[in-house]
Amino acid sequence: MTKLHLNAFLMGVGHHEASWRLPESDPYASWDVEHFQNLARIAERGKLDSVFLADSPVLMGDPGRRPGGKLEPTILLTALAGVTEHIGLIATASTSYNEPYNLARRFASLDHVSHGRAGWNIVTTAGADAARNFGLDDVPLHRERYERAAEFVEVSIRLWDSWADDAIRADKQAGVHADAAKVRPIDHRGRFFRVDGPLNVPRSPQGHPLLVQAGSSEDGRQFAARYAEAVFTAQQTLAEAQAFYQDLKKRAADLGRDPAAVKILPGIVPVIGDTEAEARELDAELDRLISPEYAKRQLEERFGLTLELDEPLPANLPSEDEIEGAKSRYTLIVDLARRENLTVRQLIGRLGGGRGHRTFAGTPVQVADAIEDWSKNGAADGFNIMPAVLPSGLEAFVGKVVPILQERGLFRTEYEGATLREHYGLPRPGVAR
Amino acid sequence: MTKLHLNAFLMGVGHHEASWRLPESDPYASWDVEHFQNLARIAERGKLDSVFLADSPVLMGDPGRRPGGKLEPTILLTALAGVTEHIGLIATASTSYNEPYNLARRFASLDHVSHGRAGWNIVTTAGADAARNFGLDDVPLHRERYERAAEFVEVSIRLWDSWADDAIRADKQAGVHADAAKVRPIDHRGRFFRVDGPLNVPRSPQGHPLLVQAGSSEDGRQFAARYAEAVFTAQQTLAEAQAFYQDLKKRAADLGRDPAAVKILPGIVPVIGDTEAEARELDAELDRLISPEYAKRQLEERFGLTLELDEPLPANLPSEDEIEGAKSRYTLIVDLARRENLTVRQLIGRLGGGRGHRTFAGTPVQVADAIEDWSKNGAADGFNIMPAVLPSGLEAFVGKVVPILQERGLFRTEYEGATLREHYGLPRPGVAR
Repeated sequence: MTKLHLNAFLMGVGHHEASWRLPESDPYASWDVEHFQNLARIAERGKLDSVFLADSPVLMGDPGRRPGGKLEPTILLTALAGVTEHIGLIATASTSYNEPYNLARRFASLDHVSHGRAGWNIVTTAGADAARNFGLDDVPLHRERYERAAEFVEVSIRLWDSWADDAIRADKQAGVHADAAKVRPIDHRGRFFRVDGPLNVPRSPQGHPLLVQAGSSEDGRQFAARYAEAVFTAQQTLAEAQAFYQDLKKRAADLGRDPAAVKILPGIVPVIGDTEAEARELDAELDRLISPEYAKRQLEERFGLTLELDEPLPANLPSEDEIEGAKSRYTLIVDLARRENLTVRQLIGRLGGGRGHRTFAGTPVQVADAIEDWSKNGAADGFNIMPAVLPSGLEAFVGKVVPILQERGLFRTEYEGATLREHYGLPRPGVAR
Repeated sequence: MTKLHLNAFLMGVGHHEASWRLPESDPYASWDVEHFQNLARIAERGKLDSVFLADSPVLMGDPGRRPGGKLEPTILLTALAGVTEHIGLIATASTSYNEPYNLARRFASLDHVSHGRAGWNIVTTAGADAARNFGLDDVPLHRERYERAAEFVEVSIRLWDSWADDAIRADKQAGVHADAAKVRPIDHRGRFFRVDGPLNVPRSPQGHPLLVQAGSSEDGRQFAARYAEAVFTAQQTLAEAQAFYQDLKKRAADLGRDPAAVKILPGIVPVIGDTEAEARELDAELDRLISPEYAKRQLEERFGLTLELDEPLPANLPSEDEIEGAKSRYTLIVDLARRENLTVRQLIGRLGGGRGHRTFAGTPVQVADAIEDWSKNGAADGFNIMPAVLPSGLEAFVGKVVPILQERGLFRTEYEGATLREHYGLPRPGVAR
């Protein structure tokens, strides 16, 4: 089998919503560049493929209850590029609330500054709150968001390709800097965008940043099958993960793509202890620190109805088709609650740790076993590692789990390439002319 | 008198359009982060107030003739923040082709990452080429651009102030991270924007980035008088610079602002030699390397008519009122040609060096004298230093001119503050509630 791909998904002081309340956590770390630089160095020590930052252009959740807000990801990753040499840098950015010229340029710039380590996690941004920061009353329809996203990516690719790789001649004697025929306008006229180009940044080290996608709805899967080189996904069970893996690889093949060039990476929230008891204790301590009333309000907003903490979810929930927000996450939450017959309080405990991602409390060997199990059984090409607590959870993963995966021959012991594409074993795209 | 303020205006391998053709110049430096990091270190060694990056979201000029395109400035400045400790970081960004939520967030993020060194040079972006990268057929009207800019800045200020300075309580025991009453939506509804807020970044070290402005038309001056804390301007003669200085200080006072809190900083393009002859020789060598036919085409586009290289400008030029592009720069060029009775070829030589900014070839003492002259005679609170060739021109300025200014007591010998606002002697704004 090919080697695993592992990303460090960085979120403030951890993915568990109560992680900031632990004695070890710095409650100001979410906006502290040195905190993130430390995390990036740890991840690079573990030879991870990338650090990854989620994002939405809105203040998510209630800042009263957990650290709210985030530094803008392309800026933060530039600061991380300065203190690392190898690790990839993947930023989430919205196609609904950006202009392609500006965003394509930011990613090309990040790719230049990092010498070929940039990746773009393409999202369409669910939620009316974000829409209301950009002149709209409500979020655009799900289908419409994905149609805009497709055109946005097409325009971005044409902008990245608007300079040929050999456009610059730098002939001082003749006074010719670039070969004008190799720097070309794109003259795009589409449904959502008019962009003349060319981009005002020469072609970047990777040609295009790595293209990543993270929604698992019908529209999201089809978008991923067409454009994504890595897919982040939330999967709770092996069977679901296998079904998703097969479905997405088949969709890519049906579109004429090499399925091996679309890496499927489920999220996993490892809670690591030297003994199983120690791991479970940390997990339980975190769950005790959740404020259930607050989490209940969040679920009520997602479902659009009132819930009781010690009752199961009501029977009359809307179907995924009626949801205009994050469709696949909605279905995942409902399925989890139904499958395990959870009360709202129990569901909150399960979601508080990883917000729908697979949580796993155990020893380093158990975590490595879980990773090996999914990757050997057609469920994953790698994982998005989402430590419940940061930096300690990433320290534990890099210090204790990575060596086991390396010993088993499942993970690299040194970086073999220079760029993020090379870490993923993906080719540098040429310029279509 | 108060001390001077000096910014290093960084542009590829220099402001002279032919600088890349010199043997010493690296023709790939314009997209090389290490080149800019070297420049930032030199500027910091000279205790300069800031490094400054111009920008427009379009490929300016003909990439065949000189290095075209630029890395996105907030990304590049983040990379410079990582290798410097004191110097301010001023990025140009357009209010016509950005959304306030995104841009306010980027500057707040840069201010956090740099520990209070961010500045925003607010521009409205002239030129149809840029408009055609953003869905428009032509550039919006000059007046309309400035009306949008004013609303854009008002929204940005409200977003930066949407978190009170003491919003974060970080009470782990009670499970209260921020005081919810101190993180407030802004609910802006205006002619150009609807933005609910709050921003998803807590208030930054400077409160607001330093606000800078660079247009000198009637609309531009009024905008600067209302919002700008530093004004970059192109002035050719002492008399013009004095008139501009007095006009802008008066406009600021008329609006109830302290005129001393609006710093006026003309651009100067120093060409420095150890002897006057050496400086003139470098100046002449650069001018010999200009391609006049190319520069003529650029002037023809600006004026909208055909020119002859060895004739003066025609008499029947349009008035500034008829120009929807960069109004004040247009008038400056026409006045320069008329005042000195220049042919088009001669005008091109004058513009090639500094594109309308004051060029000055001389010894370090002569450059220091020129700076002292304007600053002591009510024409400038400081200067934007625009070396014709980089890095050598900045090395010469920092190594030879700065010590003279320091000896004369005109310029700081050490940084006295930590933030860009402190370098400028400007207060940190409070939150209006």
